[in-house]
Amino acid sequence: MPLSPDQQAEVDELRSAPTQTLRATVPGIEAHLYKAMDVLDHGFVRVIDYMGDDSAICQAARVSYGRGTKSVQNDEGLIRYLMRHWHSTPFEMCEIKLHVKLPVFVARQWIRHRTANVNEYSARYSILDREFYIPEPDALAAQSVVNNQGRGEALSGEEAERVLRYLRDDAMRSYDHYEEMISQDGQQGLARELARMNLPANIYTQWYWKVDLHNLFHFLRLRADAHAQYEIRVYADAICEVVKDWVPAAYKAFEDYRMGGANLSGTAITCIQRMLKGEKVTQENSGMSKGEWREFLAVLE
Amino acid sequence: MPLSPDQQAEVDELRSAPTQTLRATVPGIEAHLYKAMDVLDHGFVRVIDYMGDDSAICQAARVSYGRGTKSVQNDEGLIRYLMRHWHSTPFEMCEIKLHVKLPVFVARQWIRHRTANVNEYSARYSILDREFYIPEPDALAAQSVVNNQGRGEALSGEEAERVLRYLRDDAMRSYDHYEEMISQDGQQGLARELARMNLPANIYTQWYWKVDLHNLFHFLRLRADAHAQYEIRVYADAICEVVKDWVPAAYKAFEDYRMGGANLSGTAITCIQRMLKGEKVTQENSGMSKGEWREFLAVLE
Amino acid sequence: MPLSPDQQAEVDELRSAPTQTLRATVPGIEAHLYKAMDVLDHGFVRVIDYMGDDSAICQAARVSYGRGTKSVQNDEGLIRYLMRHWHSTPFEMCEIKLHVKLPVFVARQWIRHRTANVNEYSARYSILDREFYIPEPDALAAQSVVNNQGRGEALSGEEAERVLRYLRDDAMRSYDHYEEMISQDGQQGLARELARMNLPANIYTQWYWKVDLHNLFHFLRLRADAHAQYEIRVYADAICEVVKDWVPAAYKAFEDYRMGGANLSGTAITCIQRMLKGEKVTQENSGMSKGEWREFLAVLE
Amino acid sequence: MPLSPDQQAEVDELRSAPTQTLRATVPGIEAHLYKAMDVLDHGFVRVIDYMGDDSAICQAARVSYGRGTKSVQNDEGLIRYLMRHWHSTPFEMCEIKLHVKLPVFVARQWIRHRTANVNEYSARYSILDREFYIPEPDALAAQSVVNNQGRGEALSGEEAERVLRYLRDDAMRSYDHYEEMISQDGQQGLARELARMNLPANIYTQWYWKVDLHNLFHFLRLRADAHAQYEIRVYADAICEVVKDWVPAAYKAFEDYRMGGANLSGTAITCIQRMLKGEKVTQENSGMSKGEWREFLAVLE
Repeated sequence: MPLSPDQQAEVDELRSAPTQTLRATVPGIEAHLYKAMDVLDHGFVRVIDYMGDDSAICQAARVSYGRGTKSVQNDEGLIRYLMRHWHSTPFEMCEIKLHVKLPVFVARQWIRHRTANVNEYSARYSILDREFYIPEPDALAAQSVVNNQGRGEALSGEEAERVLRYLRDDAMRSYDHYEEMISQDGQQGLARELARMNLPANIYTQWYWKVDLHNLFHFLRLRADAHAQYEIRVYADAICEVVKDWVPAAYKAFEDYRMGGANLSGTAITCIQRMLKGEKVTQENSGMSKGEWREFLAVLE
Repeated sequence: MPLSPDQQAEVDELRSAPTQTLRATVPGIEAHLYKAMDVLDHGFVRVIDYMGDDSAICQAARVSYGRGTKSVQNDEGLIRYLMRHWHSTPFEMCEIKLHVKLPVFVARQWIRHRTANVNEYSARYSILDREFYIPEPDALAAQSVVNNQGRGEALSGEEAERVLRYLRDDAMRSYDHYEEMISQDGQQGLARELARMNLPANIYTQWYWKVDLHNLFHFLRLRADAHAQYEIRVYADAICEVVKDWVPAAYKAFEDYRMGGANLSGTAITCIQRMLKGEKVTQENSGMSKGEWREFLAVLE
Repeated sequence: MPLSPDQQAEVDELRSAPTQTLRATVPGIEAHLYKAMDVLDHGFVRVIDYMGDDSAICQAARVSYGRGTKSVQNDEGLIRYLMRHWHSTPFEMCEIKLHVKLPVFVARQWIRHRTANVNEYSARYSILDREFYIPEPDALAAQSVVNNQGRGEALSGEEAERVLRYLRDDAMRSYDHYEEMISQDGQQGLARELARMNLPANIYTQWYWKVDLHNLFHFLRLRADAHAQYEIRVYADAICEVVKDWVPAAYKAFEDYRMGGANLSGTAITCIQRMLKGEKVTQENSGMSKGEWREFLAVLE
Repeated sequence: MPLSPDQQAEVDELRSAPTQTLRATVPGIEAHLYKAMDVLDHGFVRVIDYMGDDSAICQAARVSYGRGTKSVQNDEGLIRYLMRHWHSTPFEMCEIKLHVKLPVFVARQWIRHRTANVNEYSARYSILDREFYIPEPDALAAQSVVNNQGRGEALSGEEAERVLRYLRDDAMRSYDHYEEMISQDGQQGLARELARMNLPANIYTQWYWKVDLHNLFHFLRLRADAHAQYEIRVYADAICEVVKDWVPAAYKAFEDYRMGGANLSGTAITCIQRMLKGEKVTQENSGMSKGEWREFLAVLE
């Protein structure tokens, strides 16, 4: 139950009191506002605010291109053009603010995206809750044997059980000791900023995260990708659902050019040209390393 | 007449069609939306969109500080605390988007503030309008004799007249030649991206500019300051009027701590301590250079 | 003659006094240090300082990937891998500082790359020199008839002559009036910060520009590209020569993956797959617009 | 023993092989290069590279201010002027690259400084070492009773012993289980990216961190401050020692204007003016809240 009763009451109150505005509004994302989308066992993503819509992207592009842009292209065509040619500034004209609850090890990956605004719950100042991420059995993956940075099949049987037991027991014991250390009952109590260091990286934290659409797309391209760690990908997937309802034309262009597309080297382009002329191209005569060739074939299949 | 009839019609239409939203809204800034505030002879500032309000700043701060913050301080006190201690991230949770029309030499200063999103009218792609900034007589200032980067009294008489004549005539002639060069009437016509180089820096351009409140305050501190060039200061002043109506508590704290405050060196603090103990402190025994001492006295007066 | 005798003397002095350092040094770029590479008629690019080399990129990547990385891949293979997978942070570990003299209209495009450090000559504080960019005859291009943002053939005959006359005469006259306005000979003299607004956008300015290698590659990808305006492309080309001598492995990967490569949409990938299976694909059955199809064919040729 | 024998051998090799360069070099920081400065029980700071010196700051400033700057002020005076007036861009012309080993909970605070380049050891890809921060007895502070975000006296006796026992035992047990979970001995072995979540926040990580001098000063102002958590302050203090030897004039100005200085509100300035005129000013008639008044008095003492 990611939202506390207090938080749920707050959501209900906020959602019952619409006001009037002259700003651009988007019914699709209004329907998401404040509601928590559950992610993992205790996490969530909530839309707190947004600015702009598909038209705002075009409006900004048309300031740049001035007269005549309007007649040439409709909004969807213009947005595809901007995405194709990496004209990123019009996408920066849209902004979204999310409230996210997430495990610390996910937060550590997430924060590497620097062009965003963040306010995180402070464990120097406040006491963390007893909430830890414990994977579902099918997310309890073995180390990949082909990729240092990847996962293999799910563990099973005794091995899986032992892992879950360790994760649960260590989390609970660490938290018990955290509470004991900060307790001021019959003792001074350790400073919170020190006691927190005993807590493992699967404890949940939360933050407000505000980002423009261009940088959000960059985040989603890397984190909604098959190579991203599962535990951050589920957050990216949840955000994709929101973006699709917020700026449908931009999201569609993003899906085609970024998520579904490929970035090919000059060497790879030359190979395609040769193949289209009927030449038999192999790794050996391609000019690519084995790794590159494997990735290249994966694109063509 | 900074807004064209077309633009005015667009404003009227947009302002007549409020929609409902669940987001935070601020009546004070809604009243500004889309309306152009005139600046200089042909320029303007228009609010296109905004995100957040005073409460959003506190809400983000309270995520950081967790339980208990609410009881300790009301919103205004919390905002003053955040401003005093340079806790800047909660202010980043508010965002504003402006449409600005401004002379190129002002745009060149403005763009140096890097943490913002910009879409500018493209003179590669489109044709610039025949609009130039010509100062009012009282803004026609002489070079300061004490400060390389400053202004003295307004010019007068023949000197003022000659300056105005030069500015007007050179602008008109440059624009005539610009038009002649790009004309495709009986000739090929020079590329726009080349022809524009003949135009002087007082020609007007326009852009969409989107920035968070923390970075906007930084901009305003430098550009609404007495040391800023008059022609950018009038834009900063116009934006101050908007911010005051948008986030009144944050603006008040900004005024007290940033605009009305002073940043004193350790040396200056020591001098104040000595003065309060009754000691006679002079530039010679202050440890400050003459320039520093002059600025220090100006703070104490 | 872009460098003044004073500047040349300074270069000579600096180049004659090597010192010892324990930092990574690169003979290839040491040979460029301080020397001005001429660009356009009065401009230049000078390398002032640099940090890091190809090894520094790998060293940073190996901190990330820890044990075992060294055995798997040599430096060149690792750098190609990083480039292919958009692992941009190791490239940020290299930094370069340039002194650039360039026309104002080029500076206005350049400054849009925000992630860099800049100190520009101040025309509020100082007096600009009488130096203007006047294009060579073969750079005097007509407006493209197919692309609003492009150039056609070079102008010729009387039209070319008139354009050059306008550019030269307007520049000289504007500068004469600039000098007259700021003169304090028998008059007060207009403030420099005002007088400069009379100067056209082909006047030269200069700045120190410092950027990390990742952001420099982004700049070069956009500005050394055939779609970039010729007058900024020649600066990008000059910088490419420097980067090639500084980080040869990184530059080679950049050339293959960014300059020579292509970013294809999911739709385009599907078309290639169909073509490789022998299907006849046309614009009509491709799912692409006419513009996209034209760009797609250009990649395959 | 923060540096491994391998790392020490690498340092020795690097330090024994100086090369020649035409770049600006600073003997003071050359003496620090590659050597590890010990911080906390297993951490360190090592200077890997640097760019620029005090002169580079002035050189960049003089590009901005053009002719005449040289005559007016010597380097030290110019640097003080730039610092006093928040002219931050010349300080951005210096850059430093550090290798830092630090506990994860310190890394989480540090990374909030966004304008820097980072490559961190990847626990998705590699196996973390069994190294945990365990505070010295005098750093084992109680929670402050006056400040939610602060520390009181050091714990003692049984309470201190129990805290240390918890921190040590929980760390060892978590690491034992981490090793067991990733072991591929007779089992599949949990993916590293999952197993790491069992590790507490006092485990050590390491990264390369590259930052310009302006942003480094901002970091040091906040993190070398008495309000910063002790465990990050010791890193900031170590870096201060390096900066002092690298850019002595800039560091001195930073100490006076930022570390030793104070930022006073308009209200506070007015109070000082009244006090200097002999008026008796109290919290009640000061216009300040109790908290502000307390901080104000602390500045004047």
